[in-house]
Amino acid sequence: MKLASLRRGGRDGTLIVVSRDLTRAVAVPDIAPTLQAALDEWAQIAPRLATVAQALDDSQARSINGMDVFALDPEQLAAPLPRAYEFVDGSAYLPHVERVRRARGAEVPASFYTDPLMYQATSGGFIGPREPVRVPSVDMGIDLEAEVIVITDDVPMAVSVEQAAGHIVLVGLVNDVSLRNLIPPELAKGFGFLQSKPRSALSPVFVTPDELGEDWRDSKLHRPLVTHYNGEWFGAPEAGVDMQFNFAQLIAHAARTRPLTAGTLVGSGTVANEDTRLGASCFAERRTVETLESGAPKTAFMKAGDVVRIEMLDRHGATIFGAIEQKMLISG
Amino acid sequence: MKLASLRRGGRDGTLIVVSRDLTRAVAVPDIAPTLQAALDEWAQIAPRLATVAQALDDSQARSINGMDVFALDPEQLAAPLPRAYEFVDGSAYLPHVERVRRARGAEVPASFYTDPLMYQATSGGFIGPREPVRVPSVDMGIDLEAEVIVITDDVPMAVSVEQAAGHIVLVGLVNDVSLRNLIPPELAKGFGFLQSKPRSALSPVFVTPDELGEDWRDSKLHRPLVTHYNGEWFGAPEAGVDMQFNFAQLIAHAARTRPLTAGTLVGSGTVANEDTRLGASCFAERRTVETLESGAPKTAFMKAGDVVRIEMLDRHGATIFGAIEQKMLISG
Repeated sequence: MKLASLRRGGRDGTLIVVSRDLTRAVAVPDIAPTLQAALDEWAQIAPRLATVAQALDDSQARSINGMDVFALDPEQLAAPLPRAYEFVDGSAYLPHVERVRRARGAEVPASFYTDPLMYQATSGGFIGPREPVRVPSVDMGIDLEAEVIVITDDVPMAVSVEQAAGHIVLVGLVNDVSLRNLIPPELAKGFGFLQSKPRSALSPVFVTPDELGEDWRDSKLHRPLVTHYNGEWFGAPEAGVDMQFNFAQLIAHAARTRPLTAGTLVGSGTVANEDTRLGASCFAERRTVETLESGAPKTAFMKAGDVVRIEMLDRHGATIFGAIEQKMLISG
Repeated sequence: MKLASLRRGGRDGTLIVVSRDLTRAVAVPDIAPTLQAALDEWAQIAPRLATVAQALDDSQARSINGMDVFALDPEQLAAPLPRAYEFVDGSAYLPHVERVRRARGAEVPASFYTDPLMYQATSGGFIGPREPVRVPSVDMGIDLEAEVIVITDDVPMAVSVEQAAGHIVLVGLVNDVSLRNLIPPELAKGFGFLQSKPRSALSPVFVTPDELGEDWRDSKLHRPLVTHYNGEWFGAPEAGVDMQFNFAQLIAHAARTRPLTAGTLVGSGTVANEDTRLGASCFAERRTVETLESGAPKTAFMKAGDVVRIEMLDRHGATIFGAIEQKMLISG
């Protein structure tokens, strides 16, 4: 099934079940008012939501469980989780890490191939799929990071990788907005990202892994992640290729010393392949490739008014999650 | 007023208003079922909660607004916010930072005196004031960090320090549990704390700044923070002394590139003074002092069954927030 949240209804929005083709939707107040409420009781709620999804896909009924079926308008959508209790973001595509290090003449530590790079990210608010990204200044080096992201149910502390796979309940896309010029001084302080990783945007819908069929295997999503920048192709690296740590491994890493609360988001890190012909999922990556090719970056970071579009298509060319499509705005 | 949450009532517990002397309490379901619900509409809800608090402190009424007044039992309490949307933790007491660096022969960068050290911390779950801390292994180097912590309402992006002060709506204590032996390898990876900073515990009650009278000024709390370890005095450094950045500055730092959602927790960092006779608020601090005095640490980190007690008393010797008192347990 596919789930989304309308902006209306308060800080957590209103949970809706969306048809597979993303054209129609229905609210489910009698089952769960919000996505977080559904995640809090997922084992009981998910089967009931699945029944609604089935009814939506099997018929052109004008109402389900007494609620009107309506045409889905992405402009009306909040992030599926407008606010969440935890977001841990990985950096699982090592070609990106390797290139960044090579460009500055540094080695990749051997441990990076066995011990995931992950950081605690902000979960206090997620930007809707059509909402602008507001940044205080263009001088901060505005970048996107197109990633795959999953949502878990309750994950016990010290979960095994095998068990962790079963705790992935929803899959979606994220634009992990990054302020590149703030990163070097912030990381130099030794305490990780804070100002340099502001709020991220989520895809219009999140889907259960069964919706992905054969493209979801080994806790990875095996489709290209397509990014456009101001209407031009920017990259479409394969999300299932060169992902050193799958989502089960990332979850187990994050849960080593603590449980993860239902509704925790776990990101893959910017999708990047060995094969640079497939393009990039962030400007930092493209600039690194340019630096390795010609000694210096050619592409500037984003400016006010620039538009980013992030999407994933299934084998038949249909959008899986809908597109994140958003403008960069300066609001100082 | 003083607020707490009973464990019963679901994942967010049940909001209660607590008498100033922490002996009696009353639920307020008609005003707000949970503390997060109150924080979501703080401007409207706070005055109504204050009216209940006044009634509780002014009389020995057996019920208020139709709800029974009951004797407060700290064993029944969850953390005031059992889960939250954001926790950013500072390291505002520079004597601690200076000593740690001196012990390893390193300089404190000049920027540390003007640019706060802060990190994104986990907010997915907070441990109740009497609940045990569960750690997978004693080999991880179990430590406490006794800190002051505040909760904000909605804070706009790029808020000024002056404005930030007005967004502090509640004050409490936190035990920021730290796994010292995981910190060096984790920080060496460059992405900050994840496994080394698991769930933290919160004090029984959080209070509005007006409850603190003259002890709350310049966005700092001017009282000693008292820690006991297995019943013995461990330290009582002055929380209002040597705090390089006050809470307004910490909030403004965290909000530089993003808004903070209502219910965001902002921690001070482990309270530490220049004057080491006042003791420590964490084992790392005590071990650092020992290293500077005699070349090596003498005190071991905590072991299973150890008990930590963290409390702050007012000028008359009465507990302000109640005590965090919890046992360390190994649950691998």
